[in-house]
Amino acid sequence: MEKLQNGYLFPEISMRREAHEKKYPDAKVISLGIGDTTQPIPSIVTSAMAEYSLALSTPEGYQGYGPEQGQKSLRKAIADVVYPNMGIRDTEVFISDGAQCDIARLQMMFGRDVTIAVQDPTFPGYVDNGVIMGQTGPAAVDEESGGSRYAGIEYMRCAPENAFFPDLSRVRRTDVIFFCSPNNPTGHAASRDQLRQLVDFARRNGSIVVFDSAYASYVSGDDKPRSIYEVPGAREVAIEISSFSKFAGFTGVRLGWAVVPDELLYADGTRVARDFDRVVTTCFNGASSVAQAGGLACLATEEGRAAVARVVAGYKENARVLVDTFQALGKEVYGGDDSPYVWVRLFPGRRSWDVFAEILEKTHVITVPGSGFGPGGEGFVRVSAFNSRDRVVEACARLTSFLA
Amino acid sequence: MEKLQNGYLFPEISMRREAHEKKYPDAKVISLGIGDTTQPIPSIVTSAMAEYSLALSTPEGYQGYGPEQGQKSLRKAIADVVYPNMGIRDTEVFISDGAQCDIARLQMMFGRDVTIAVQDPTFPGYVDNGVIMGQTGPAAVDEESGGSRYAGIEYMRCAPENAFFPDLSRVRRTDVIFFCSPNNPTGHAASRDQLRQLVDFARRNGSIVVFDSAYASYVSGDDKPRSIYEVPGAREVAIEISSFSKFAGFTGVRLGWAVVPDELLYADGTRVARDFDRVVTTCFNGASSVAQAGGLACLATEEGRAAVARVVAGYKENARVLVDTFQALGKEVYGGDDSPYVWVRLFPGRRSWDVFAEILEKTHVITVPGSGFGPGGEGFVRVSAFNSRDRVVEACARLTSFLA
Repeated sequence: MEKLQNGYLFPEISMRREAHEKKYPDAKVISLGIGDTTQPIPSIVTSAMAEYSLALSTPEGYQGYGPEQGQKSLRKAIADVVYPNMGIRDTEVFISDGAQCDIARLQMMFGRDVTIAVQDPTFPGYVDNGVIMGQTGPAAVDEESGGSRYAGIEYMRCAPENAFFPDLSRVRRTDVIFFCSPNNPTGHAASRDQLRQLVDFARRNGSIVVFDSAYASYVSGDDKPRSIYEVPGAREVAIEISSFSKFAGFTGVRLGWAVVPDELLYADGTRVARDFDRVVTTCFNGASSVAQAGGLACLATEEGRAAVARVVAGYKENARVLVDTFQALGKEVYGGDDSPYVWVRLFPGRRSWDVFAEILEKTHVITVPGSGFGPGGEGFVRVSAFNSRDRVVEACARLTSFLA
Repeated sequence: MEKLQNGYLFPEISMRREAHEKKYPDAKVISLGIGDTTQPIPSIVTSAMAEYSLALSTPEGYQGYGPEQGQKSLRKAIADVVYPNMGIRDTEVFISDGAQCDIARLQMMFGRDVTIAVQDPTFPGYVDNGVIMGQTGPAAVDEESGGSRYAGIEYMRCAPENAFFPDLSRVRRTDVIFFCSPNNPTGHAASRDQLRQLVDFARRNGSIVVFDSAYASYVSGDDKPRSIYEVPGAREVAIEISSFSKFAGFTGVRLGWAVVPDELLYADGTRVARDFDRVVTTCFNGASSVAQAGGLACLATEEGRAAVARVVAGYKENARVLVDTFQALGKEVYGGDDSPYVWVRLFPGRRSWDVFAEILEKTHVITVPGSGFGPGGEGFVRVSAFNSRDRVVEACARLTSFLA
């Protein structure tokens, strides 16, 4: 625990926001920071949760513990709707209270003695959970970027220079590779060919890929896979984790899932799914049954699927507005097409925490400093499309005044 | 992971039940097995959850991520209602998705290098999470009882011979002591004097007590503390974990909490709460906001508190029926007064899995074999009061026919 650097990124930003609001009590702060959904959940979904809740007060409708792995109906809906024609069975889908919690459980399963690789930059949860489990050495400040790196972790640089995909011929073999696509924070969705390279690399090395597809519903077009299981051979090397958070506005409701295919084996031939099942039944008691009722309503009907897709489409339009704004300002900007995140270098050469602080000071807009996602994120800030259209437009106007 | 013996206890029992139902498709199986609530949740609670859910479809009512540590209002309600006059501050209460999940997070925080002590018998989650974290050596079969013990764990025998409280003068010092009171499975609630001994023992040894009070609402009378914080000095040595599961029928809804007092320090003087906060914010994203709305409704009004207390009182009457039945049969029986669990030795000298199997075969009643809770549980079965009165009465009639 002592090795963990500073606070966890998002609580740190919350504290900075609070301090700012104290300093400027009349400022109307707009958060394009933490990736938290803001728009109402379609009523077809919340009605299902309300109905389920009320039924818990009736003898017929009361249900206690469900299966730790989740309701059969929801597991089946995910297998059928999210993974059509990918050969995913309902028994391979484990319902969870969110992808972040699954990362913790997976890291608990992997234990202290594994080596891990992560994209750089990427969501900090993979590394931080690894540090808590004791997989790493101490952190050291990276001279070039000013960000910190933990000894023992393989950082796979994903930058504009390599089109946000690592040169795998230069990546050291590790036991586990965490790979997030569309990537948080860069917004880059790996192409089919890139994921094929990743799967081949993992097969050659006997590595397990943990593929985080939490933003899959934001992908545009068919050339970029929404799941790693679109790639042949992935069932033998990959776990996929995903979430209703950014797909259905469930950040507070808490619902996600992990897929652990039966063909995924340890070197000794035993099934990884067997261990994960044991972790889920021992360290977890299943996601809230009310949340699961809501998740099923998102997937079970055409109406539900269309309703949640409309909310995602709205956030994607916000992302378009942000990208257009930064492009009009002549800034170096990425992401937004396949993700709710826009990745922008506002002041080349300056540290991202300084840029974050100056934007907040001058425009009362919250972003996230890129170095919070790893040393490779230094120099960038992440701007989130999760807000109402009005606020995004207002934030863009302020940013334009400040940056133009 | 390889060291874990067999399946986790409760899924194992589910499998045995399924096999039994296949063999006897017409039998009306009654489960007095897994401690799963069966009675409807008071409508004041489910209405609050339904209302909260529906509000998520409105711009005003939508809320995304809450604080990872839980809603302020719920933390405050727990501090005020559950811990009156015990000096617990709302900031010391961490809302969770259940006590089992908090055990996993605490074990993740403690890491591989701590030593632990547990009651024997007790809830298997403490040990199993410790095994997953790598705290133990391999399991060995205990010659005397036939149960298995893990090397490195200090088993504190809690048996009829010592009135279910360990002789602490013979207990080896460990870094952490898991202590469940009222104990699952024996139903024994430690007295004020016993908890004082435990706190003194931990203070002398510099140990942390993890006090599991999940069944506190079942305690009768004022001589047995419902919280370890009723004991002077406990704030400096104890974490308390608890749950809405057995208190409000939330086994499927998922809601619990942990209390980590500010005065609880590691040997180097740093606050344990700081580490736990980091684990909660890194490995968890908070309990479902809908469940939290329900939890608040259980505590915030006199009406809510009275409604959930009535459900608990109903289960306690069931426990009375069970105890009376076994006493009338001349069996050695414990528990039931301060807990929904009755602990009974039906056939002295016989193994508890055999007793479990015979009861199931002859009466179609599910119990839990005592050895599932540790080697000290061998010879007993746990009988749960979680069912409708009708079914408990019917089960007692069948058990009487079989045993008389």
